[in-house]
Amino acid sequence: MRNIAIRLAYDGSSYHGWQTQAGLPTVQQTLERAVEKTVQHPVHVTGCGRTDAGVHALAYCANFRTDCAIPIDRIPLALNSRLPADIAVQAAVEARSSFNAIGSCMQKEYIYKIHNSRIRDPFLDCRACFWPAPLHADVMNAAAAAFVGRHDFAAVRSVGTETKTTVRTVKWCRAERDGDTITVTVCADGFLYNMVRAIVGTLVYASDGKLSPRDIPALLERGDRRLTGPTMPPQGLYMHRVWYDGDVGNMME
Amino acid sequence: MRNIAIRLAYDGSSYHGWQTQAGLPTVQQTLERAVEKTVQHPVHVTGCGRTDAGVHALAYCANFRTDCAIPIDRIPLALNSRLPADIAVQAAVEARSSFNAIGSCMQKEYIYKIHNSRIRDPFLDCRACFWPAPLHADVMNAAAAAFVGRHDFAAVRSVGTETKTTVRTVKWCRAERDGDTITVTVCADGFLYNMVRAIVGTLVYASDGKLSPRDIPALLERGDRRLTGPTMPPQGLYMHRVWYDGDVGNMME
Repeated sequence: MRNIAIRLAYDGSSYHGWQTQAGLPTVQQTLERAVEKTVQHPVHVTGCGRTDAGVHALAYCANFRTDCAIPIDRIPLALNSRLPADIAVQAAVEARSSFNAIGSCMQKEYIYKIHNSRIRDPFLDCRACFWPAPLHADVMNAAAAAFVGRHDFAAVRSVGTETKTTVRTVKWCRAERDGDTITVTVCADGFLYNMVRAIVGTLVYASDGKLSPRDIPALLERGDRRLTGPTMPPQGLYMHRVWYDGDVGNMME
Repeated sequence: MRNIAIRLAYDGSSYHGWQTQAGLPTVQQTLERAVEKTVQHPVHVTGCGRTDAGVHALAYCANFRTDCAIPIDRIPLALNSRLPADIAVQAAVEARSSFNAIGSCMQKEYIYKIHNSRIRDPFLDCRACFWPAPLHADVMNAAAAAFVGRHDFAAVRSVGTETKTTVRTVKWCRAERDGDTITVTVCADGFLYNMVRAIVGTLVYASDGKLSPRDIPALLERGDRRLTGPTMPPQGLYMHRVWYDGDVGNMME
């Protein structure tokens, strides 16, 4: 049976996240319907991670198994013709039989966009977090550096999802300003529920002087979610990059 | 009576254009409601030009008269608190009594964005015209140059709006590629109905070899709308800049 990996982008504004939920529009369900119409049999689509309601993806990976004869280079346009305008399949590749979009994933990178301006921008509504008070990107970046490394990230996760361990390795974490936009970039071998949004909330706390970048190692050590910053709203969050080895890795580059 | 000029931006996707129409949401009407709630009396808002359904504005100028005592620097936030997220007032200034957003306008610049890629981008839906066939920006730019100057533009206007003359002066007109996006920029002392969208359609015709940039002077001369390119869809069009003298001009810079 063919195992097809696809790269897709979506604007998550109209969806209740990635994962299928009865009676609610989700990206997974919308994609499965489009794949099923294309390959003409029931399909389960596996995604590289859950994204919450309102969260976007610039490069997301998913895979599904099929016996259909459609040439691989025709898959993107065939699926796009059956998908709404807020989801687009950008590429497809034949994956080895054991490939699985979540299990084979080596690391992922999210970005979080903050529109830091007194005046809101109509074109960034639902696409960035609007934050009218001045933020200090340099302080946020100093705080971001404290998250890099192998740590227990219980202090920056929301409870609600089962996980064996709350230890993850953050490869890089930084905050940069470009005009009115501050972008926070976080790459890790795995993410806990709401981890990026809680990290960004903690960087905002650091910018506001509510904690110091130097406090972060101790806050991670204590593991108390109540002592770190707030969970930022979903609309600033984008899945930005997902790493795999082999052909799927090349497709995602 | 105070005459207040404001600079605003809007995402036109949800509106039936600028101008008030009974029973349909328009930008003018939405803005007038917000101004009336703010200044506590009926208001007529004058805009710098009509934009069609689905057309956007990055910098639009409007003015209204009021006796309210609200300080000018509080006007933007006061209005924004009463406006939906797809319209934002960015600045306000006291204008001289004779100022009128349409009558005092010296020249306007529109941009038209074409997303020229085989694969559509979910984040450009309603924000650019998706054009999957390859376009030649250099040929489009050569054709664009032929529109510059004082001409009768009847060949690139849609009938439907009364106008004394179809002669206008195009100050500059160019097409540039940046990655997958081609941006056409047109500045003129005035625009006829659908003029930018018909010019862009004619540039696309030139790119496709359906006419040569060298043909354009003769096509303008003949003034026959049927011989030029199609009217492009509205979602790629943005009002980009409006020129005035004095304080309003400074505000719009």
